[in-house]
Amino acid sequence: MEKSIRLSLCQMKVTDDKESNLHKAVGMIEKSALNNSRIVMLPEMFNCPYDNSKFREYAEEEEAGPTVTTISRAAEDFGVHIVAGSIPELDSGKIYNTCYIFGDKGEIIGKHRKMHLFDINVPGSIVFRESDTLTAGDSLTVIDTGFCKLGVAICYDVRFPEIFRLMVSKGAQIIAIPAAFNMTTGPLHWELLMRARAVDYQVFVAAISPARDENASYIAYGNSIVVGPWADIAARAGHEECILYADIDLGDIEKAGRKLPVLAHKRDDVYEVLYKKDGVKP
Amino acid sequence: MEKSIRLSLCQMKVTDDKESNLHKAVGMIEKSALNNSRIVMLPEMFNCPYDNSKFREYAEEEEAGPTVTTISRAAEDFGVHIVAGSIPELDSGKIYNTCYIFGDKGEIIGKHRKMHLFDINVPGSIVFRESDTLTAGDSLTVIDTGFCKLGVAICYDVRFPEIFRLMVSKGAQIIAIPAAFNMTTGPLHWELLMRARAVDYQVFVAAISPARDENASYIAYGNSIVVGPWADIAARAGHEECILYADIDLGDIEKAGRKLPVLAHKRDDVYEVLYKKDGVKP
Repeated sequence: MEKSIRLSLCQMKVTDDKESNLHKAVGMIEKSALNNSRIVMLPEMFNCPYDNSKFREYAEEEEAGPTVTTISRAAEDFGVHIVAGSIPELDSGKIYNTCYIFGDKGEIIGKHRKMHLFDINVPGSIVFRESDTLTAGDSLTVIDTGFCKLGVAICYDVRFPEIFRLMVSKGAQIIAIPAAFNMTTGPLHWELLMRARAVDYQVFVAAISPARDENASYIAYGNSIVVGPWADIAARAGHEECILYADIDLGDIEKAGRKLPVLAHKRDDVYEVLYKKDGVKP
Repeated sequence: MEKSIRLSLCQMKVTDDKESNLHKAVGMIEKSALNNSRIVMLPEMFNCPYDNSKFREYAEEEEAGPTVTTISRAAEDFGVHIVAGSIPELDSGKIYNTCYIFGDKGEIIGKHRKMHLFDINVPGSIVFRESDTLTAGDSLTVIDTGFCKLGVAICYDVRFPEIFRLMVSKGAQIIAIPAAFNMTTGPLHWELLMRARAVDYQVFVAAISPARDENASYIAYGNSIVVGPWADIAARAGHEECILYADIDLGDIEKAGRKLPVLAHKRDDVYEVLYKKDGVKP
C-alpha cells in the first residue's frame, strides 16, 4: 500500500447551467491529473444550484444521466479516481443528494447518499429545508480504492460523529466530505468540525466546497480544507474558484496513534457505537 | 428550573503542599460565592502535583481524607455547589482519578472516576502514562442538582465523543471537565475539543485547568474555558491563576436546537451509541 497520495479538491463555482458545470468539472479534473493527483474531489451539488426549486429539474437517474457518463469518462481518460461531489439523484421518483465515486478506469466503485438532511432555521440569516425535496440515504460508504480506504460523508453528515467512528472502524483512512456550508455556519463551525472529526478518529478529512458566489440564492462558504489525523491543516483554500492540492502521507495515521492511541483507548466494555445495517453492503 | 447560572472556574496554581492547595481552593470557593456563583469548579488533581510518583502519597479514601472533608465544609459554609476537580482516590489499594461533586449543604451528590487513562508518547515533547499508577472508572456521571443537570468528564475523557452523546441522552446540560492539558496538546487541541463537544451535542462545556507553572514536572496549559451550545466561547482565561466567571443561560440549548436540531436528526434507525452499563447507576 502506497503511503503518499496527492489529493485535489476542485473548489469550482457552480452555475445554473448544468452543461457548463460539467465542462468546468472536467477541465479541473484534467488539470488535477496533469498535476499528478491520484484522487480528485468535486463539491456538493456541483452540477446544480443548491436550491430546493432546482433539485428535481437537475436530477438524473444513475444509468441515464449525462453527469455520471461525463465524469466516468473523465476518470478513465485522465486515469484518476474521482469523488464526484454530489448531484441530485432520481430513483423511483425520489431525489437523493448522492456522491458517486469512480475508479481510474471510469467504473463506479461506490455511491453515498447523504444520510442526514439539512434543515436549518436561523431567522434573518439562513433558512433551508432539504427535507422539503430530498430523501435521506441510510448506509455508510467506505470504499477500498486499492491504495487507500475512502469514506464519504456529505456536508451536514459531518455533524454526526457516530458515522465517523463507524467508517473508521471499517478501515477508512481518508474521509471525503463534499459540502456547502453557508456564510452563517461556515465561519462558526466549518474548520472546527473538520478538525474535530480528524483528531477524534485519527483520520484524514478532505472537505470540498463550491467557490463562493455572492449572487447565488445560497452562498457557499468556500474554504475547502484538508486536515491530518493530528488536527493539522494540510491545505486550505480561500473562497475563490481554485484547485486545492494536498500531498498526504497515510503513515501519519499510525504516527498519531503512536502519540495518543485514542482508538485503542475506547472503552468498548462501557459503550459502543452500533451500526444497525451490518450485513447491508456499506 | 432557573435558566441563568453563574459558574466559576478556579484556575488555581497547584503546588506539592496539599494543605496549601486546600487552603487555596477554599479561598477561591469563598470568593466565587461572594461573587454569586452557583457552581464552583476546581481543576484536575487540585490537591496533588500531576505526577505519577505523587498519586499514591496524596491519595485519600472517600470517607477518610482531609480533601473531601474540607471541600464539603466549604460547599456548606458558602452555600454553593462544587465540582471538585479531581484528586487521587484510594479504594481497595487501587488509585482512581476522581471528581467529587458536592451539593450546597456539603453533601456528596456524585462522583466521577476518570474513564480513560491518559497514556501519551510524543518523544521530545511529552511522555506520560497514567496507567502506570491509576485505575480507570467505568461509569458515566450525570447529576441532577435541582437547577440543572451536570455531566462530568475528566481531561482525556474529552477525546471520546461517545460518552458526551450518552451524558446528553441522560439529560446533561452542562458538562464540567476538570482537565490538565499540557503545552503540546493544549495549543493544538484544547479549544478545538471543547468547542466540538459543545456544538456536536448542543451542551455547555466548562473545562477547568490548573494555572500554568513552568517549574512543574508536568506543565498545564491553563486557558480554562466555557463554551456554549453553538460553539460560542462564553469565557476564557489566560494561563495565570484566576477565577473565570461565566453567566450561562440554559435556554441557549433550546435555541441552538431550534436553529439546527442535530440531536433530533440523529439516525437512530441506522446507528446508535450504546451504554452497556445501564442498570448501573451512572
